[in-house]
Amino acid sequence: MRTTVGIIGGGPAGLLLARLLHAEGVDCVVLESRTREYVEQRQRAGILEQGTVDALRDCGAGTRMDAEGLVHEGIELRFDRQRHRIDFPSLTGGRSVMVYAQTEVVKDLVALQLADGPPLLFEAQAIAVEKPESDRPVVRFTHRGREQTLECEYVIGCDGFHGIARAAVPAAVRRTYERAYPYSWLGILADVPPSCEELIYARGERGFALNSMRSPTVSRLYLQVPNGTDPADWPDDRIWDELDARFAVDGDWSLERGPVTAKSVTPMRSYVTEPMRYGRILLAGDAAHIVPPTGAKGLNLAVSDVRIMARAFAELRRTGSAALLDAYSDDCLRRVWQATRFSYEMTTMLHTDPEAQAFEGRVQLARLHRIAASGAAAAELAANYTGLPLG
Amino acid sequence: MRTTVGIIGGGPAGLLLARLLHAEGVDCVVLESRTREYVEQRQRAGILEQGTVDALRDCGAGTRMDAEGLVHEGIELRFDRQRHRIDFPSLTGGRSVMVYAQTEVVKDLVALQLADGPPLLFEAQAIAVEKPESDRPVVRFTHRGREQTLECEYVIGCDGFHGIARAAVPAAVRRTYERAYPYSWLGILADVPPSCEELIYARGERGFALNSMRSPTVSRLYLQVPNGTDPADWPDDRIWDELDARFAVDGDWSLERGPVTAKSVTPMRSYVTEPMRYGRILLAGDAAHIVPPTGAKGLNLAVSDVRIMARAFAELRRTGSAALLDAYSDDCLRRVWQATRFSYEMTTMLHTDPEAQAFEGRVQLARLHRIAASGAAAAELAANYTGLPLG
Repeated sequence: MRTTVGIIGGGPAGLLLARLLHAEGVDCVVLESRTREYVEQRQRAGILEQGTVDALRDCGAGTRMDAEGLVHEGIELRFDRQRHRIDFPSLTGGRSVMVYAQTEVVKDLVALQLADGPPLLFEAQAIAVEKPESDRPVVRFTHRGREQTLECEYVIGCDGFHGIARAAVPAAVRRTYERAYPYSWLGILADVPPSCEELIYARGERGFALNSMRSPTVSRLYLQVPNGTDPADWPDDRIWDELDARFAVDGDWSLERGPVTAKSVTPMRSYVTEPMRYGRILLAGDAAHIVPPTGAKGLNLAVSDVRIMARAFAELRRTGSAALLDAYSDDCLRRVWQATRFSYEMTTMLHTDPEAQAFEGRVQLARLHRIAASGAAAAELAANYTGLPLG
Repeated sequence: MRTTVGIIGGGPAGLLLARLLHAEGVDCVVLESRTREYVEQRQRAGILEQGTVDALRDCGAGTRMDAEGLVHEGIELRFDRQRHRIDFPSLTGGRSVMVYAQTEVVKDLVALQLADGPPLLFEAQAIAVEKPESDRPVVRFTHRGREQTLECEYVIGCDGFHGIARAAVPAAVRRTYERAYPYSWLGILADVPPSCEELIYARGERGFALNSMRSPTVSRLYLQVPNGTDPADWPDDRIWDELDARFAVDGDWSLERGPVTAKSVTPMRSYVTEPMRYGRILLAGDAAHIVPPTGAKGLNLAVSDVRIMARAFAELRRTGSAALLDAYSDDCLRRVWQATRFSYEMTTMLHTDPEAQAFEGRVQLARLHRIAASGAAAAELAANYTGLPLG
């Protein structure tokens, strides 16, 4: 097989890129190692930045999102048994976010691509990228048991943290930056209407908790737990009791309980690899960077990577200039580091660090009180949460 | 001896408090363990927040400060060999800071107090505070070799981190919060006009450096060095060479060298003790809290403590109500924790942490780039630097 742009990975990054390239008349092929069913069920993020919402609408993938997604104009910070709301539109000049699950975004993009888009191969497992320095890099992959090659002008790694594309960048030129955190998230899905209209980020001595939702009838809740926690040690009642304790406030507030339909523990990590381009290989999304989920930046960063990339391919096609493609890594990394910083700050402001002193806990509280007291501090949080400009 | 308010410590906190109480007609006595000459030479801070400047003017101690002090309307952040100025007035609605050495503030306050103020005893070494829970606490002290007592209605501990007043708060009710930093400052005074009009805070791989001044003819410069550094290992040339390297930028800029007249190494610490009041003992300034010098909050916090305290004594005298005195600790600590947070953030944003990973260094840079790019982030820095409201 031959194509102009070979895309490894059919998650939201690869699928949106294919859609954007298709609109610009750039040929591409998407290789996805899993089945369609698997990809459409994978539980991931659920908060779309304003710019992500705009991009999905612009490429025709916004119809169901606009019908079923929940526009959120703020979040609540909960600390010292008090509640403080951050109002996005008034702090950012009208921006907001959308609650719409990543699985739904993927379903919408898969449907569009199968209807009128470029080739999308499921169960196509990339094995290696060859000749990344040449004008004709090759992706070797197996498709339903048969080994094949995809000859490309460019290869795009949208294959996530455990993908193979990143390894095509020689170790000698690769720099990696990493931070582990001394806690994980125990997340549940529950068939119960959310007990809050907007997300609640709660900081307390018992640890962090997040009250979120997937839809008007499905709640998504998280508890900070120690690394290595076994979900089996957390029967449903224990989870609900702990959530009650962490969300408790002075004044009326209660959490509705319901059947827990999924339960899992996720460790947290910050990770950035540089550069995001080597020769004719470009990385996007989790293949290049991981953020902890506090602040909801992972999916949105993947989307901004491929928007920057699509703009660069459009310029190449229209004018013959590779200037934007050459700037791709630097342009992305500026934004990646800002989102990495914000995710790190949100994470370290809200979680109880078992290795920290009491001093750090008081500094966390001082940060939260300052955000509640200062328009500038609140505006800075809102600007980062709803998404920085593409640049 | 008897008085209404017995003040232990004749640094800027104790002296300003005496001045403010005197203006309200509240009797007080100041006990200072050192000689006048020693107190007037002690090198300490040099940046006065807007509120500190206003307070010194209001109490008649502003004449020489206004003649000789240098109003600074901004600072420069230096990173990645670039320069970025933070403009205070435009970001804060007209606020600025004043460069005027703490030693000069002390000289002005000593002169005023000796001219028309309440008693100020030098070489009066407090030994213990007795009966803090009673209505008549007593300070035992030696004055020029003779042991004496000062009977008070209130005792104020302005005697610094190593003072004795804090120990009068029983350990059972005291909570302390502390953080050490894995670096110190090597500071010099040099007889050379400063090479910059405003302070320069420089972050780089070699470590932090600060370019400051005491007057138009005296430079004050600092280098981050490892803890335990012996100043003798840093001959003058080595210091100037290292300063040159840390302040280097793309474009013209050079550092004038001159005779080094003082050289010392200071470790860095954050420390807060709670409560700041116990019975009839109130703590102010370094007796209750220490901040690292990045951000210049130590002297200014001491001044805001005694302003809050003087307001409380004024209310007690005018109305008989002790409500503000009862609220003293909480009112101060809100502000203390904000300054502690800010000093911590400035310190950890600008210093190279030898124990940290490369990841943290990139997050530092992302913070600095964000401050340079975002009005809200810059405004938040400027508001904290020029001083938060007294509350």
